[in-house]
Amino acid sequence: MANWIAGQWLAGLGECITSTSPYNGDVVWQSQSATAPQVNEAVSAARKAFIGWKKRTIIEREQIVQRFADLVKANSEQLAEVIAKETGKPLWETRTEVAAMAGKIAISIRAYHERTGEAQRELAGNQIVLRHRPLGVMAVFGPYNFPAHLPNGHIVPAILAGNTVVFKPSEQTPWTGEVAMKLWQRAGLPDGVINLVQGGKETGIALAESKGIDGLLFTGSANTGHVLHRQFAGQPEKMLALEMGGNNPMVISEQYGELDATVYTIIQSAFISAGQRCTCARRLYVPSGDKGDALLVRLVEATRNIVMDEPFALPEPFMGSQISIAAAQHILDAQTKLQDLGGESLIEARAGKGAFVSPGIIDVTAVTALPDEEYFGPLLQVVRYQGIEQAVALANDTRFGLSAGLVSTDDTEWDYFVEHIRAGIVNRNRQLTGASGDAPFGGPGASGNLRPSAYYAADYCAYPMASMEGEQTELPETLSPGIHL
Amino acid sequence: MANWIAGQWLAGLGECITSTSPYNGDVVWQSQSATAPQVNEAVSAARKAFIGWKKRTIIEREQIVQRFADLVKANSEQLAEVIAKETGKPLWETRTEVAAMAGKIAISIRAYHERTGEAQRELAGNQIVLRHRPLGVMAVFGPYNFPAHLPNGHIVPAILAGNTVVFKPSEQTPWTGEVAMKLWQRAGLPDGVINLVQGGKETGIALAESKGIDGLLFTGSANTGHVLHRQFAGQPEKMLALEMGGNNPMVISEQYGELDATVYTIIQSAFISAGQRCTCARRLYVPSGDKGDALLVRLVEATRNIVMDEPFALPEPFMGSQISIAAAQHILDAQTKLQDLGGESLIEARAGKGAFVSPGIIDVTAVTALPDEEYFGPLLQVVRYQGIEQAVALANDTRFGLSAGLVSTDDTEWDYFVEHIRAGIVNRNRQLTGASGDAPFGGPGASGNLRPSAYYAADYCAYPMASMEGEQTELPETLSPGIHL
Repeated sequence: MANWIAGQWLAGLGECITSTSPYNGDVVWQSQSATAPQVNEAVSAARKAFIGWKKRTIIEREQIVQRFADLVKANSEQLAEVIAKETGKPLWETRTEVAAMAGKIAISIRAYHERTGEAQRELAGNQIVLRHRPLGVMAVFGPYNFPAHLPNGHIVPAILAGNTVVFKPSEQTPWTGEVAMKLWQRAGLPDGVINLVQGGKETGIALAESKGIDGLLFTGSANTGHVLHRQFAGQPEKMLALEMGGNNPMVISEQYGELDATVYTIIQSAFISAGQRCTCARRLYVPSGDKGDALLVRLVEATRNIVMDEPFALPEPFMGSQISIAAAQHILDAQTKLQDLGGESLIEARAGKGAFVSPGIIDVTAVTALPDEEYFGPLLQVVRYQGIEQAVALANDTRFGLSAGLVSTDDTEWDYFVEHIRAGIVNRNRQLTGASGDAPFGGPGASGNLRPSAYYAADYCAYPMASMEGEQTELPETLSPGIHL
Repeated sequence: MANWIAGQWLAGLGECITSTSPYNGDVVWQSQSATAPQVNEAVSAARKAFIGWKKRTIIEREQIVQRFADLVKANSEQLAEVIAKETGKPLWETRTEVAAMAGKIAISIRAYHERTGEAQRELAGNQIVLRHRPLGVMAVFGPYNFPAHLPNGHIVPAILAGNTVVFKPSEQTPWTGEVAMKLWQRAGLPDGVINLVQGGKETGIALAESKGIDGLLFTGSANTGHVLHRQFAGQPEKMLALEMGGNNPMVISEQYGELDATVYTIIQSAFISAGQRCTCARRLYVPSGDKGDALLVRLVEATRNIVMDEPFALPEPFMGSQISIAAAQHILDAQTKLQDLGGESLIEARAGKGAFVSPGIIDVTAVTALPDEEYFGPLLQVVRYQGIEQAVALANDTRFGLSAGLVSTDDTEWDYFVEHIRAGIVNRNRQLTGASGDAPFGGPGASGNLRPSAYYAADYCAYPMASMEGEQTELPETLSPGIHL
């Protein structure tokens, strides 16, 4: 009974799906996926609920969303445990994910009013009024790396604006999706306002192709995002908001300041969430010469000391496992490929039990044609450079543009960097992986289609309606030329 | 020498194009179109100019744009005459177009700062900074109905944000494009910041397919817009902003207030610019019964009195010609088709000399399957209805959603209308064709891809860059679990 459609928990009629703890292979959740007809039922339920939901006042919608936030807080420990069991992320980290999820509510309410609220002024006897209107039924595709927080970042702005939703969690994290939905149910959300369909690729295709959706909000891989973009070709009337990946550069200047703090910032950028954040640093630009050498020695040492373990282990690990054995293998394969191309491992990523992969750092300076791929795990590529101009040119040599960072105490270097770098998240002396929730999120290039989410998510959940209003029709003192009544 | 590329006026190497006054057949402009290699030269020129232009301060960019506004004002009469000769619109109306073009500058500067400026705040020792960055090279496709004002509404926000532009005017209005470009040249715009390529479909395809563009800003027909949307499939990294057409409903309530003022408002909505505005009323919903009958009698009478003439004629006409003889024939064919389907002409549109078509009103209440087409000319369809709910349901029965209007003195009816109608411009007791320049512009459905222009154009001309900044890297008092330096 894993599919929530029109306010009913229904058994899926499709293939069996299983959620497995990637760190020990335990099956933690099992159910059946929604078939295409069931997906269409969910879309119909969302359509049916749309008029009633959008007619509610924003105050009423806010109240229900606020009750959901309270329930997330009240059940945060359970939710954090579920996410940890399903993703392999350490418990301390999944707790921060749940806190971010709860925190999203107040931010989204503020964004709704600031970006898409109502405004009114008088001009020459007319009321000039700006309203915003929901789009209708939004499909939400969630990723596995933040299975609670990231789909929530689409769902909350969408329903605040008055849309209804059909949500398909990642097939790797169906349990988290179900638990979150049960909190919405308890929050008193009317039937059909959010519907949950479980499943993999086929369920996803059915949802994306459903005629009844008015938009699709996606966070996930660049490959899937591009497939969706092609699928939506010729349908400009459907909102498609894509948040995809990155091949994110982090540039360390000669003037990097304090050594240990810099190493710490790099580790937080590259290896947090076992490298499974879309903002993670993938390419590290380190100056040639002694200062750069010293940094790398210390970085490799600290990386070797990173504790990797199961989510609930004590002492607490910094890193958990990858999401799946296949994902782990993908990282190991990428490392082998880079080694074959001439890369030199400074510390080699190694397979552990289950889906564990230890962090790897590989010097790819000698690789002449470095693949512009996102390796979604704990594999950091190092390139030695000379001069900030070269570093920025190399950093920009990517089709992606999600995040980028500079570590430098030199203001001139920062001015140059922020002026020339091409990315949507650009941090200085701070980890790349810490995006502020009340800022927009997204980047140019293959990282998305410039519908930035987070604080700007309100924009794609509503369309503006501009009005000129008068109490009655009026005849001007002078009619337009050539009109005689 | 009609193509302006890299600051040089160049002869096109493609086929000859001719601009003809549609009201008398005079050839007013003739030149050769840009070939695909010339289009690519223009894109390269824009690319080359991009870094220098985006590096200028916003103050410098504003100064040049402001000089352009001053030149538009100083040359407004010449520009208004050129537009009138090329489009057949009455001179009084092209003067308002030029005024709107000049007025766009101050509005765009305000929108730039309000929607995409910079913001900074401090949070726990971090500077949280929001900047916005230009996308690169933008292709701008202009329409013929406002050949100066509408492309200007794409170009000004684009270059204010730091983008560079390749502009292809409609092949029906190349002269206006050239005159506007010459004002930019006199304003001291650096070479390559705006490039002008003239031509028809082939030139347009070459520009849209050019690998070097980062975005395409389009105002034009729904058909072309859908073709572009398919052409951009799988390229989410390219900004595509589509403003397309409408099949705009105007609902007249039983409580329509003063008769003549209402008739005047309908005529302004349906027949201004000879029906060649994308916001023009196409479908008029009139209540069944005596009040509706009386309105229609008066409307037909006033429509018969509309003066249609050449742009410079005295007394001044309300309506000029259609843009071309083909466009005129298209309207007459549409009328025949509606008559064949059972429509009854209350006043028949008739061909005049050249591209003139007199205004037509056709009662299509009896047509069971009314085509959902935009007739881009002076052909108004009337549907009789009973009750506001039916009127709104019929009004919403379109794949478009650009503009809609209600004429009613009853607040309850307006509340119902504004709550249920699906359109981006929704006016009460005011003509549908009067959109406020400092409001967003656009609508859902086949009217566009929800990149609303006018005041929100700033949004698609820049992407947000969110930063966390600190003077140096820092070690927290407590490290994350599992990290040991």
